[in-house]
Amino acid sequence: MNKQPSVNALAQPLVQALIADAAALRLAVDTLANGTVVVDAGIAVFGGVEAGRRIAEICLGGLGRVSIRAGGDFSYSPWQLDVYTSNPVLACLASQYAGWSLEYDEGEGAFKALGSGPARAIGSHEPLFQELGYRDAFDKACLVLEVKERPPVEIAEKVANACAIKPQDLTFILTPTTSLCGAVQVVARSLEVSLHRVHTLGFPLPAIVDGMATAPICPLSDDLIVAMGRTNDAIMYGGDVTLYVDCGDSDAEHLARNLPSSSSRDYGKPFAEIFQDYKYNFYAIDPGLFSPARITISSVRTGKTYHGGKFNEVLLDQSFS
Amino acid sequence: MNKQPSVNALAQPLVQALIADAAALRLAVDTLANGTVVVDAGIAVFGGVEAGRRIAEICLGGLGRVSIRAGGDFSYSPWQLDVYTSNPVLACLASQYAGWSLEYDEGEGAFKALGSGPARAIGSHEPLFQELGYRDAFDKACLVLEVKERPPVEIAEKVANACAIKPQDLTFILTPTTSLCGAVQVVARSLEVSLHRVHTLGFPLPAIVDGMATAPICPLSDDLIVAMGRTNDAIMYGGDVTLYVDCGDSDAEHLARNLPSSSSRDYGKPFAEIFQDYKYNFYAIDPGLFSPARITISSVRTGKTYHGGKFNEVLLDQSFS
Amino acid sequence: MNKQPSVNALAQPLVQALIADAAALRLAVDTLANGTVVVDAGIAVFGGVEAGRRIAEICLGGLGRVSIRAGGDFSYSPWQLDVYTSNPVLACLASQYAGWSLEYDEGEGAFKALGSGPARAIGSHEPLFQELGYRDAFDKACLVLEVKERPPVEIAEKVANACAIKPQDLTFILTPTTSLCGAVQVVARSLEVSLHRVHTLGFPLPAIVDGMATAPICPLSDDLIVAMGRTNDAIMYGGDVTLYVDCGDSDAEHLARNLPSSSSRDYGKPFAEIFQDYKYNFYAIDPGLFSPARITISSVRTGKTYHGGKFNEVLLDQSFS
Repeated sequence: MNKQPSVNALAQPLVQALIADAAALRLAVDTLANGTVVVDAGIAVFGGVEAGRRIAEICLGGLGRVSIRAGGDFSYSPWQLDVYTSNPVLACLASQYAGWSLEYDEGEGAFKALGSGPARAIGSHEPLFQELGYRDAFDKACLVLEVKERPPVEIAEKVANACAIKPQDLTFILTPTTSLCGAVQVVARSLEVSLHRVHTLGFPLPAIVDGMATAPICPLSDDLIVAMGRTNDAIMYGGDVTLYVDCGDSDAEHLARNLPSSSSRDYGKPFAEIFQDYKYNFYAIDPGLFSPARITISSVRTGKTYHGGKFNEVLLDQSFS
Repeated sequence: MNKQPSVNALAQPLVQALIADAAALRLAVDTLANGTVVVDAGIAVFGGVEAGRRIAEICLGGLGRVSIRAGGDFSYSPWQLDVYTSNPVLACLASQYAGWSLEYDEGEGAFKALGSGPARAIGSHEPLFQELGYRDAFDKACLVLEVKERPPVEIAEKVANACAIKPQDLTFILTPTTSLCGAVQVVARSLEVSLHRVHTLGFPLPAIVDGMATAPICPLSDDLIVAMGRTNDAIMYGGDVTLYVDCGDSDAEHLARNLPSSSSRDYGKPFAEIFQDYKYNFYAIDPGLFSPARITISSVRTGKTYHGGKFNEVLLDQSFS
Repeated sequence: MNKQPSVNALAQPLVQALIADAAALRLAVDTLANGTVVVDAGIAVFGGVEAGRRIAEICLGGLGRVSIRAGGDFSYSPWQLDVYTSNPVLACLASQYAGWSLEYDEGEGAFKALGSGPARAIGSHEPLFQELGYRDAFDKACLVLEVKERPPVEIAEKVANACAIKPQDLTFILTPTTSLCGAVQVVARSLEVSLHRVHTLGFPLPAIVDGMATAPICPLSDDLIVAMGRTNDAIMYGGDVTLYVDCGDSDAEHLARNLPSSSSRDYGKPFAEIFQDYKYNFYAIDPGLFSPARITISSVRTGKTYHGGKFNEVLLDQSFS
């Protein structure tokens, strides 16, 4: 009934503003040999919370708002990141989800990353896009890479080619996990992880009407495992999601019961510990764990609202301290 | 001392942005036979929370800010709508209040609606405007209609004529009560209902200096009475208003005591139940009920602050579940 | 590594927008004899909370965001002012801090004020700028004066000359302490006072990476001492600051222990009372008192977070009532 929005067209003004404000945001901007623009958001520079917030809005394909707010649910970490979007499925799954697997070379010069952000909707071949029934087309694109090293020019060539754009019309934003921008842009995935989980549970994506989520901004760590653990814990033990869905009561109730991280067999320890227990094999972890702590499912069809899960402040404090 | 702002001039860029972003906001835009623009915000399309937020800012004549925030006062409904304006009287009473009574025909094709938003300040003949000492003049106008059907072209002609503008320079925004936009734009009236009540209590409007309000975003219902009841309950049992007033202590205290919904004889049941008890005769309900739950009145003249009323989470839970 | 941003260039669009929206914000704008623009934000006009919020963002040199939010930590004063910036040191110390001492004449026509805002970074000779290693250059400038009288043209000449700009390119914004804009723009200094204190404690400023703060919006008073006391109490007994710092654990812990207002010998009474006890000699008050109530120091180097201080709602209620 409605023309679909272009996540790359919507995100591009935000990308240009990020670049224009680089000095104020403590970001560094330069180009690869082929002209692809690289925004360093935490490797040679500090970046910051506001830059992370803006990168999160770019990740959401310009379809969502991310805001920073004091007065959170947790005394230990008094700042929250609120996220909401007028189109959760496109914003989170067609754009923000880190689904584009990029690799170059092996051994010492090897580069490996999962790309997230609007460029995915043009160039990535993930099967998810067929289910979404959505492909974007635009002459500029942006991809966010959670890496601590600059990508080789070959990766930029590959992405630009896949998107059928000129290399100089591609922007890479680099957000190391251990940086402020890295932490903020991951914690801003509180809504996205819930949508990914909704999808895994077999709930029909077109029935997701609207969504809002919040999670506490976690402290950093220069230890990659600890840093990654804290961002995951922020969502798994402190994330709170509200989804408006167009479905019957039993489907809504089923979602509220099965969506919270507490429904996972791996729930109950800080993520870093779980990861270690699985000998750092990410794929051994129960996917059900990657979901927010507290869920509200409100049916726009029946008017009923269902709640599931709860915060786990004890585990958050353990993780963040 | 100061030139009065034009609520239509201030709202018009917001209207144009809403139309430009229609695809992203899941709105549908077309025109009536006479060229009047119609934004469907919940009839044939889903609309959404962000669209509702932006429509609320249009209703406030561009003089107010509406924001969506997690971490509300009520565990059952964890999202709040904060509203504040630099000019509460003009924003709420000259623009947002649903005071323009529009009717066309009788019987089956009949159309009946209460118009709200900035067009009122140009074209509506409500006596309120004489008390406000304010009339707007602008070559474009916008009216929000809480209806589930498109208005006939005759209604558009009538409004355009009353505003002395071309039909194509008029925009109607349609927000059914049972839609997300409908719910959000009504809950965003937490400040407006308090100003309307202040006026009814005979308090001089020029003494209202500034104002801020918040209320929980309520769940939808496809039952009109339940939907209407929930938006009213959100304000009556969960709304929180702060007014800065320029008056003496006894007037401020009087306001704090008489403004809260709890001062009404009809306080104490979900709105839908009260409505039913009065056999769906809206005008039989005590007008004093339509006011926020909690009131803070702060005198900028004396420096004293008075509080009245309190939240009623039990009734909110009853209404929202 | 990074070019420093120009606080005056970043603030200038905000200044122009404030002037353009003067009618909506209830501000009055005119010029002095030499063409210097004067924005009256609370002398002959009411101003308001939104105008105060925008003036606070101007004070931060366009490097910070200030937002108004319901649902605060204190039932007595349910609205909070959140502040954060991508560059706390420049935003707060090079711009927002009220450090430019301006005087003209003596006796009856005397004018005395402490200027804050981005013009300082061009024209003020405070020794602080050498420590900051920052000077701005721009052809327009803005200074905020917390005064209840218009400055004489000689003050405008002095500031314009010091900034090497034409008098008509200078804007003064006047925010009396007893006005809404005055109260809001002072309470928005919750982050700034903590940075000033950090500096006094000898902590290296370049180690401050990011920062966020919040404090309750206080009620006004037409008594200057009461008004001043309440804005100070809002921060000292209700302010909450989070700083990301690049330092070792013992330095971070030291900061968390020594930064809160409770570490001051003068802590424990409303500010107005302390001021009176010191016979209104401002400089007799322990500078350690001018700091937020609650502090979170998070080291981006070690990943450890330290907490200090706590809210004092009893004293806030005493001050605000």
